[in-house]
Amino acid sequence: MKYYPEIKLDIEKAAEFLELPPSRIAELIEKRKLQHNWDDFDNIYRFEGHAPHLEDGTVLIDHHGSFELIRGFPKIKRAMLLGPALKKSFSEIGSVAVEEKMNGYNVRVIDYNRKLIAFTRSGHICPYSTERVQNFLERDFFKEHADIIVYGEMAGPENPYVQKYVYDIESLDFFVFDMRYKTTGEALSVNRRRELAEQYGFNQVRLFGELGIGEAPEKITEIIRELGKKGHEGVVIKDPEMVLQPIKYTCSESNCADLNQAFRFYNETGRDYLFSRVVREGFQSYEWAESEDEFQKRCQRLGESILRPMKETIKTVQNGERISDSFQIRVRDKKVIYKFKSYLERLGLYVMFEMPERQGNEYVIKIRKINKSTNDKTLAMLEGQLWS
Amino acid sequence: MKYYPEIKLDIEKAAEFLELPPSRIAELIEKRKLQHNWDDFDNIYRFEGHAPHLEDGTVLIDHHGSFELIRGFPKIKRAMLLGPALKKSFSEIGSVAVEEKMNGYNVRVIDYNRKLIAFTRSGHICPYSTERVQNFLERDFFKEHADIIVYGEMAGPENPYVQKYVYDIESLDFFVFDMRYKTTGEALSVNRRRELAEQYGFNQVRLFGELGIGEAPEKITEIIRELGKKGHEGVVIKDPEMVLQPIKYTCSESNCADLNQAFRFYNETGRDYLFSRVVREGFQSYEWAESEDEFQKRCQRLGESILRPMKETIKTVQNGERISDSFQIRVRDKKVIYKFKSYLERLGLYVMFEMPERQGNEYVIKIRKINKSTNDKTLAMLEGQLWS
Repeated sequence: MKYYPEIKLDIEKAAEFLELPPSRIAELIEKRKLQHNWDDFDNIYRFEGHAPHLEDGTVLIDHHGSFELIRGFPKIKRAMLLGPALKKSFSEIGSVAVEEKMNGYNVRVIDYNRKLIAFTRSGHICPYSTERVQNFLERDFFKEHADIIVYGEMAGPENPYVQKYVYDIESLDFFVFDMRYKTTGEALSVNRRRELAEQYGFNQVRLFGELGIGEAPEKITEIIRELGKKGHEGVVIKDPEMVLQPIKYTCSESNCADLNQAFRFYNETGRDYLFSRVVREGFQSYEWAESEDEFQKRCQRLGESILRPMKETIKTVQNGERISDSFQIRVRDKKVIYKFKSYLERLGLYVMFEMPERQGNEYVIKIRKINKSTNDKTLAMLEGQLWS
Repeated sequence: MKYYPEIKLDIEKAAEFLELPPSRIAELIEKRKLQHNWDDFDNIYRFEGHAPHLEDGTVLIDHHGSFELIRGFPKIKRAMLLGPALKKSFSEIGSVAVEEKMNGYNVRVIDYNRKLIAFTRSGHICPYSTERVQNFLERDFFKEHADIIVYGEMAGPENPYVQKYVYDIESLDFFVFDMRYKTTGEALSVNRRRELAEQYGFNQVRLFGELGIGEAPEKITEIIRELGKKGHEGVVIKDPEMVLQPIKYTCSESNCADLNQAFRFYNETGRDYLFSRVVREGFQSYEWAESEDEFQKRCQRLGESILRPMKETIKTVQNGERISDSFQIRVRDKKVIYKFKSYLERLGLYVMFEMPERQGNEYVIKIRKINKSTNDKTLAMLEGQLWS
């Protein structure tokens, strides 16, 4: 079920604020690339796809005629070959800051009408993240720095998007990795951002340190090997001043864990998802000049991360069950459960919520997401249909 | 360089012959879905993409106002799970004919103006295949059976498309696997087709026999295991009467050999190409109820077939060389060399032909096909550019 509320935006004024011709705004609305958020937030708009000069997922807030822009988090490009990429990206500066790239979901937080709200990467207001973030971040910060947007990773097992147990988090937590000014989109320097976060008691992603450009490739490779062993995802390498664009680099183990998760739902998994991960393995194996034995292990790991979950899925469906993605969330306010369900359904997901279970002053709710396409395809194959 | 010769087709008459409204023909021409063939064959047209009711790659010949249709070879669907697929596809008949699916390229042959011509799957007239086929097939057949189109596989090492050494063929050969009537598209029964081919001395794909439906899954699995060991591709399973649609089923080794070849040119390799082959492995592994040890070997084989060629490519480019696809062809008439080069260039390929070398009464020409996209991408990564 889709909701298409009327757009009540003052096009002329919005156009002036965004420095775009009104016809362009009208076109974005027409093509549904500028949309409402839902529920209590019908004056908060979301850009879908790339609007000109704006990061994907950028949000526009209409304060009854005056506007505010909450920029999407800029896409971080990936190093395929770490050494050459560091050299090319950062040759003009002496050192880089290396922070952990956590495996959760990317959230932006602002203060809005005396409450924090959390946007997902695509610019949706996630009711679950919005409730949770009240516990994670001090509102004082946002009062005293109303011009700053806080970007962070929501990570942990009680996570509707990416459940990870590797961080020693019981439920869910928020780790700051970026702060940017609303007006310009400019990022605070790594030090300034970490100081501010520290001052307000925010959790932060781990800083491995500032490395000289000469030592960086070797040191980061060591970090990546260690993170890989622990099942962590990887690193983001940054200009300490945040003037040059950061780059990311990830572990083979995390890559294969992604595939292992994704291939349970092989028919939902994008072709690009598979291809891009496979290609990363090829480049890393090359750069690390692996022995034949190490290389064989990598091939094995890659193959198995694809085939084992797929086989499990076929077995499950053969046994008359249906595969699904199960996770749980934890909320304080029962109303958030219904808002979150409706939110997921509006996004087009097919979900089943179990009865909330009281734990202390909170509710825990188990949720199953049904992956119809993989179930249907697997069943069809088991019934002898042909692939195409 | 592209060639767009004027279409001289009599639209009214063609529409009447094809039983389509003239406006539809005009639209197909407008959208370039009905195109000329080249050179000596400007009254031979080719349908690109699916024209209504016509197989992909169907050809229309305009004999100055009277028409002839050379239907494309119908797509053969693939069994993912052999047992269930056999049951579902062939339950209404008692037995199936199992023939080898060879790994070469699919060619259709007709007699045209007292010479054989060979169409590729897409309906192009391939000058190389056309010259070669004169040696492989008796023209008598086509005089005596002017209403029949012969479909076969061009296989062997001297092959511009798929070079295979596993068939004990020195240069190139043609193996009949289908015959169909021009007017109706109806196929001859397996027996009748094999008798006719035998009678005229045509090579044919191997017939493993006619198997009862009950024994077929097990027997075909055995055949597939044997073919896999020899590096052959697989089988096509047919209704002996050719009324029901045939299905294909292939070996894991051939699947991995495809990937091994394709991933030298990883950036040219389609995402779908990778995905579909990976999925086949998952289903076969499930159906064969493999031991953990066999399963590990399959994972290893799959991973290695992707990563090893990719690593080799990166190494080659790092060493300052450029990767390319090298093969050779063999012709009797020197003019065919130039025609074939121009043919490949019109298809948009970047090829380098070496000087022809005389061998007996023939010429051997070495050809290099440059895979620009993979070379460029690899070089960019080695220079430290980011993936995206």
